[in-house]
Amino acid sequence: MSAKIKIEKKILSENDKIADGIRERLHQNNIVSLNFVSSPGSGKTSLLEKTIGYLGKDTKIGMIAGHVQTENDANRLKAAGGKIVRPVVTGGACHLDARMISKALESLDLEKIRMLIIENVGNLVCPSSYDLGEDMKVVLMSVTEGDDKPLKYPAMFRRSSVMIINKIDLLPYCDFNMDIARENALKINGKLRIFELSCRTGDGLNKWYSWLKSPKI
Amino acid sequence: MSAKIKIEKKILSENDKIADGIRERLHQNNIVSLNFVSSPGSGKTSLLEKTIGYLGKDTKIGMIAGHVQTENDANRLKAAGGKIVRPVVTGGACHLDARMISKALESLDLEKIRMLIIENVGNLVCPSSYDLGEDMKVVLMSVTEGDDKPLKYPAMFRRSSVMIINKIDLLPYCDFNMDIARENALKINGKLRIFELSCRTGDGLNKWYSWLKSPKI
Repeated sequence: MSAKIKIEKKILSENDKIADGIRERLHQNNIVSLNFVSSPGSGKTSLLEKTIGYLGKDTKIGMIAGHVQTENDANRLKAAGGKIVRPVVTGGACHLDARMISKALESLDLEKIRMLIIENVGNLVCPSSYDLGEDMKVVLMSVTEGDDKPLKYPAMFRRSSVMIINKIDLLPYCDFNMDIARENALKINGKLRIFELSCRTGDGLNKWYSWLKSPKI
Repeated sequence: MSAKIKIEKKILSENDKIADGIRERLHQNNIVSLNFVSSPGSGKTSLLEKTIGYLGKDTKIGMIAGHVQTENDANRLKAAGGKIVRPVVTGGACHLDARMISKALESLDLEKIRMLIIENVGNLVCPSSYDLGEDMKVVLMSVTEGDDKPLKYPAMFRRSSVMIINKIDLLPYCDFNMDIARENALKINGKLRIFELSCRTGDGLNKWYSWLKSPKI
């Protein structure tokens, strides 16, 4: 085994231990947690802006927003009504890891929140390997990215419980086949729960909101 | 310095040595080389399909197409007329590295090509750190991804020589401000040469083609 693979395994195993601890703490506090992952520009922040605007009235939501640089997404989430938002800047790393989440949780009063939403860095590869202690991963893709993405980035779709196909308002202008996209995704992970929606027009958001009120895999 | 950072530095320094060797070999053979990077779904393969269709008639182009899984992109490039296409499957890694390119070059007759085009894995973060021996990086973004991308993923835009803004046919349906996108990109890298185009309608492709016939930074 090469030194690189050895150290990667060690890092992931340490990460998993921290993640297990996070999950236990969150469960002790009856907090459900979701880790949102996608390519850059798929619309994670837009979806979370809408979500916080709707669900934030009744549910106490804590949010951790990951960035490679800037705190733009965290600022957008605050402006959208997010009251408990913690930005995390990875400083170049292409994913959040459990240690970053653990540190961000230090400043959250877990008794005061019922749901933890993590917005990961925009990347369809590495974030799939890092358990953050969440109950489930939610993977977004937008129709402009093409219906082949689940096949090309299978680990992320295999390890997610929910897939959101965003920007369906752009369907008439893209060569995207919804049936093939669903088929490709379910080929990788037959248990994926799939939502189709548009943050821009609002189409499909109600279904997403009502599922999210009591998210079950 | 942590063990992780130490080994990362070592890997990158080894990568740079191999990359320098590649660049030297390519220059000895008068081959100009470009490394195409972007998020998944920005349209790298679509642009290269168009490019090979147009430029491939007069210029001998060798292509190396990187994938995390599948060989879909390499197959698309072959179908578009690419005569010398080498697929590389990283098997999970989120970027190509110089060693992979060096291995792919073993099967190319460098005396027979004038241009080497590398299509990297779809990822706006890690591929920025790995020199592949190319003359320049070409970063793509599509208008559906938002005009803030250069600020959020600065390393990639800083290390690229060319930025292509793709899918301009979708401008009327997106909240994308072209002036702001250009301003954000030039703030990160004032020397970026910027092309705006649409692979779908063909708008802007001619400017790109004529620059590519004799690409200069």
